[in-house]
Amino acid sequence: MCELLGMSANVPTDIVFSFSGLMQRGGRTGPHRDGWGVGFYEGRGLRLFQDPQASAESEVAALVQRYPIKSHTVIGHVRQANVGKVCLANTHPFVRELWGRNWCFAHNGQLAQVPRAGAPAFYRPVGDTDSEAAFCELLNRLRNLFPEPVEPEVMLPLLVESCADFRRQGVFNCLLSDGDWLFAFCSSKLARITRRAPFGPATLCDIDLSVNFDSQTGPDDVVTVLATEPLTGNEAWTLFEAGDWSLWRLGECIAQGRA
Amino acid sequence: MCELLGMSANVPTDIVFSFSGLMQRGGRTGPHRDGWGVGFYEGRGLRLFQDPQASAESEVAALVQRYPIKSHTVIGHVRQANVGKVCLANTHPFVRELWGRNWCFAHNGQLAQVPRAGAPAFYRPVGDTDSEAAFCELLNRLRNLFPEPVEPEVMLPLLVESCADFRRQGVFNCLLSDGDWLFAFCSSKLARITRRAPFGPATLCDIDLSVNFDSQTGPDDVVTVLATEPLTGNEAWTLFEAGDWSLWRLGECIAQGRA
Repeated sequence: MCELLGMSANVPTDIVFSFSGLMQRGGRTGPHRDGWGVGFYEGRGLRLFQDPQASAESEVAALVQRYPIKSHTVIGHVRQANVGKVCLANTHPFVRELWGRNWCFAHNGQLAQVPRAGAPAFYRPVGDTDSEAAFCELLNRLRNLFPEPVEPEVMLPLLVESCADFRRQGVFNCLLSDGDWLFAFCSSKLARITRRAPFGPATLCDIDLSVNFDSQTGPDDVVTVLATEPLTGNEAWTLFEAGDWSLWRLGECIAQGRA
Repeated sequence: MCELLGMSANVPTDIVFSFSGLMQRGGRTGPHRDGWGVGFYEGRGLRLFQDPQASAESEVAALVQRYPIKSHTVIGHVRQANVGKVCLANTHPFVRELWGRNWCFAHNGQLAQVPRAGAPAFYRPVGDTDSEAAFCELLNRLRNLFPEPVEPEVMLPLLVESCADFRRQGVFNCLLSDGDWLFAFCSSKLARITRRAPFGPATLCDIDLSVNFDSQTGPDDVVTVLATEPLTGNEAWTLFEAGDWSLWRLGECIAQGRA
């Protein structure tokens, strides 16, 4: 199993605080020693940092923790390998271009197999994880049904149906984004918190680190963080139920439901 | 205009020395202030570092210079923007997946327009540079003619013909790789050097830095470096002629010609 981290915000926000907590689970407070990765959208560009090393010992992870990259949308992941060996090609998040956008995907869980809907295999896995295979299959289905770009609301039914399809093969918690929106699907475990004024202090569970968001934010800031398990101990996180999906833009939930 | 850097080696080799020289051209000894990027293949995975900032001032570039990532194949680039604004989405190298491999591309030059061969626009630019548009067009032509993977020798004619086609629209020096091989096309300016035993000392042109490769290499190591202009002042670089193309694998040239 692995740990997911997602962020959607209405102002460019750094994720150093949450990332610092997540990285501890990569070999220190958690067993996820088999690599980590994080993708930050900057406009339509995507800045991707990855390492097949344990995040708690990674020099690149140390850089990311020192270097407050501000973004509207972030997807991060720490990995405990089940399918696929430990190497860069098997390290989340995975990225593909569709409709001239960078699509970024991370998965927590394991699939007995990745069901094929018969769509042409335009996107093919580079590594040998079930996760990347599922991501490619998802994009192949999307491209097959929508050769030209559509609004997220239009493709949502296919997205949700595909996630539900994958979930029948095992566990499929995932985060997906094209940089404009962030989609989350909960198959077994996923939590969320939306922070907005009045902001208060927060304390990480995994490391002795606190922050007072009040000093770092404006009155209209809205920041939603999604994680496999709550990252802070003194805030009220909401746990998703199995089958819950949600779509986020600029920190706000713009659609949700249960598959 | 921009500066290109490529490496092909038969043992995993760090490119810190050459990279240190190239990065100086990003704002210190050269005018290429509009971003930089470098992609290192690790197996089938690709580790990409990019910044729309001047490389001479980039914290990420400083990390890459401290952190000797060893690779068989590397593509790097510093940018002086002509087409497309300065942002991450317009920063080279560009990456796409084709046939389950990560393809990486960097371009030096400028095209009046990117000629379309009528292949379906499967790959679409995320940013607005002529370079990324040319890369997408190249991959669209390849995918259209070869829906399934072929050996580099089989696709070489299409690759060379497409580069020659682009060159008619302006200047098109480029580096392209799928991690297994490295392809270079010279439209106006590109230099190369192949280092093998007996190795000797080398001194960068752009910064006061010398290295004795003899102490860092084995007797069978073969390392080819390609760059827009020679990076060292005391070694014999070979300059490509306009229209020259070459294909490299494990440091050795496996095919070459003139378009």
